[in-house]
Amino acid sequence: MADSQELVEDTADEDYALRRDVVETLFDALDAEDPARVAEVLEPLHPADIADLFEQIGGSRLRALLAIWTSDEIGAVLSELDEGLREDVIDALPQAVLADAVRDLDSDDVVDLVEDLDAAQQTAILDVLEAPDRVAVEQSLQYPEYSAGRLMQRELVKAPEHWTVGETIDHIRAEDDLPEQFYHVILIDPRMRPTGYVTLGRIMGAHRDVPLQDLTEDSFRKIPVTQPESEVAYAFNQYHLISAPVVDENERLVGVITIDDAMVVLDEEHNEDILRLAGVGDESVSDSTWEITRQRFPWLGVNLATAIIASLVISLFEEVLTQVVALAVLMPIVASMGGNAGTQSLTVAVRAIATKDLTGSNAWRVLRREVTASLLNGAVFAVIMGAVSLVWFGTPVLAGLIAVAMVINLGVAGFAGLLIPLALDKLKIDPALASGTFVTTVTDVVGFFVFLGLASMILL
Amino acid sequence: MADSQELVEDTADEDYALRRDVVETLFDALDAEDPARVAEVLEPLHPADIADLFEQIGGSRLRALLAIWTSDEIGAVLSELDEGLREDVIDALPQAVLADAVRDLDSDDVVDLVEDLDAAQQTAILDVLEAPDRVAVEQSLQYPEYSAGRLMQRELVKAPEHWTVGETIDHIRAEDDLPEQFYHVILIDPRMRPTGYVTLGRIMGAHRDVPLQDLTEDSFRKIPVTQPESEVAYAFNQYHLISAPVVDENERLVGVITIDDAMVVLDEEHNEDILRLAGVGDESVSDSTWEITRQRFPWLGVNLATAIIASLVISLFEEVLTQVVALAVLMPIVASMGGNAGTQSLTVAVRAIATKDLTGSNAWRVLRREVTASLLNGAVFAVIMGAVSLVWFGTPVLAGLIAVAMVINLGVAGFAGLLIPLALDKLKIDPALASGTFVTTVTDVVGFFVFLGLASMILL
Repeated sequence: MADSQELVEDTADEDYALRRDVVETLFDALDAEDPARVAEVLEPLHPADIADLFEQIGGSRLRALLAIWTSDEIGAVLSELDEGLREDVIDALPQAVLADAVRDLDSDDVVDLVEDLDAAQQTAILDVLEAPDRVAVEQSLQYPEYSAGRLMQRELVKAPEHWTVGETIDHIRAEDDLPEQFYHVILIDPRMRPTGYVTLGRIMGAHRDVPLQDLTEDSFRKIPVTQPESEVAYAFNQYHLISAPVVDENERLVGVITIDDAMVVLDEEHNEDILRLAGVGDESVSDSTWEITRQRFPWLGVNLATAIIASLVISLFEEVLTQVVALAVLMPIVASMGGNAGTQSLTVAVRAIATKDLTGSNAWRVLRREVTASLLNGAVFAVIMGAVSLVWFGTPVLAGLIAVAMVINLGVAGFAGLLIPLALDKLKIDPALASGTFVTTVTDVVGFFVFLGLASMILL
Repeated sequence: MADSQELVEDTADEDYALRRDVVETLFDALDAEDPARVAEVLEPLHPADIADLFEQIGGSRLRALLAIWTSDEIGAVLSELDEGLREDVIDALPQAVLADAVRDLDSDDVVDLVEDLDAAQQTAILDVLEAPDRVAVEQSLQYPEYSAGRLMQRELVKAPEHWTVGETIDHIRAEDDLPEQFYHVILIDPRMRPTGYVTLGRIMGAHRDVPLQDLTEDSFRKIPVTQPESEVAYAFNQYHLISAPVVDENERLVGVITIDDAMVVLDEEHNEDILRLAGVGDESVSDSTWEITRQRFPWLGVNLATAIIASLVISLFEEVLTQVVALAVLMPIVASMGGNAGTQSLTVAVRAIATKDLTGSNAWRVLRREVTASLLNGAVFAVIMGAVSLVWFGTPVLAGLIAVAMVINLGVAGFAGLLIPLALDKLKIDPALASGTFVTTVTDVVGFFVFLGLASMILL
């Protein structure tokens, strides 16, 4: 049954994860210092998978691998690596190997590779490029970081807007330096301003004498060269773009962005949002212990400050806590439910802001909905928790107290969960980054204050 | 200065959000029941933007709009709408309008449209399709939900693997029903099994007598028709695919998936992960108050249960709490810091599992790193919080207690933050969905238990 076809299928692995036995074979080959076997293990892998492998093995084994593995795939692997690890690998590679690797890359991949390196590494790489490539890379580096100008490729296919299909095909066939990938021919006016584009499929399907103008796509959109790459990714996703011309401040064509690059940005942006919501910086699985310790420290520090604020609120009510210890037992429940409901609201708000679904036009309506939903859930959980408290402590007053505090804190959670991200966004602070801390501070403070405050008023 | 070009630029709006004045003009037109002005406002908008507008206005205004707006864009707008709202809009549309709208769509868009509808709505839509289209849609619906079979389009361009560029171009030119978008010609063997593909750019750049075989791309990958769409999106992102042939269990070509559809899936998957991490279901800004109340209820319920468990732990130590009220003031800090550190670890772990960067091969190494980083941060915050407690309460024992509890709880947070997502993943439970609750339960319970437990041992 197990013919070679099946073995290949097996190695491809249905869910695309690196197979453990591949990793183990590689480790054996490294331990045996056997370059031929290392090459044999790595050769069938896609550069993106080799990069993942680098990230997973890390440390001394990675250095051992870099010392004995030579391949013309190294440039492609470098392009796929996490930024943190990339610097280490570049440092570890012999200068000659690095030079060969970089010369094989397209100019936009070189930009992507060098933009995050320190000055010394950047110079080392730029020096090995041939003059025209170096100029192209240096020009791209003049655009702001994370802008369309950094993301675009300069290689593109354009045609004067009055050309026919036949002229265009003859031009493409005569061109011996076509881009690796292109999907559209961009029409330009005499001032180099893009005015439309035509898919290659339409050009191939049409007769030679059809004007390109008759074949243009409705989806055509220009991207300003200074536009942030997150906006570029949004536009590709929202308008189902496959490629889009990039224009300078005079509307002149300077490059083209393709959907595969936009998809990478979309993926990175999401990843950043998820990590930021959890108070983690741009972290990856290949970062060192020291790096992750340092990256997580600031938000733990902020959290400590807010936790101390909450404790200060508690300390206002030491007297009633001493008399009714059940309050100390129950108070974390009020704070926790508020924090949870607030996190739900803020996460929905942060997403809706990112996808431009939450705007000035509907903020008021969404706020009413958030607060109402929170109050409704608060009412149900107030009844449940009131009943639990009554059974547990047998004190109707305590049950009433926690029920009232629960409703109030959940209402506040819905309110703060929406307004805090909106306010941060207005202040041009990334709402994913800071909302969580503010919202849970509010729900902790309000939770403790209302519960213990009401208790002192009634019980003392 | 303000010529018409500039006005258009202005309307396009640099950051792609719907402009408030557009929304307000629309509302005025709706209030005036003026169909011509409604059409005038909506006409320049992309269907995706009109869908966003629908989601933002909602309720009675949306019903008023649907009653007076007719456009051949309605089908495209339906494709872009959130699923929840889509059902409402379909119900609100007159049958004849709906029929026209659906007939204009490609078969894969119809599949996307009908797959989440209830049976009655589904039948209503299928009935208006012409027989061949209906058969195509019904066939796609036979594949599992969220599989490659649902995502693929059936329209594609294929060529026998022995053809030349000339034969292929002649075939494409003779074909009068080409797909709307296609980027590759797929090579097939005599049994209809795809063996490679060639980009249109390469075909156009080559001479007529060049065999297609000489132009195939290394990036070629086949997608099994039953593969989950999340895996498809991963493959497109990881391997920079632009399109990929979909094959049945006999390796025969049945369709093609293009990167724009994969990008939509990637976006949805990320969105789902973010919302699930916050204990929110598949929720959108257009959902009703009642829907969001219901969707958020279960996780608040789970949170209440875990909060009660934490309170039970506290209640074990009522005696020491009565005697030293400062413990009640400080205990939430220990739990909060543990919860925060645990959330950091688990979010990184959930992401790394999703991107296949965390596997059996490196889990052990990552675990050591997580625990070490948590302990290091724990040690620093133990010193800080110890000092704060000493200043605040003037009791060295209390300062020592909170410091020790902090280190232990943060170490546990790193441990649980990694192991719980990994364990859930092994059990085939989405780690994004349930990790948060488990991890914070652990850090709450451990935090309270260690801090109050040590306190009773030492202070009583």
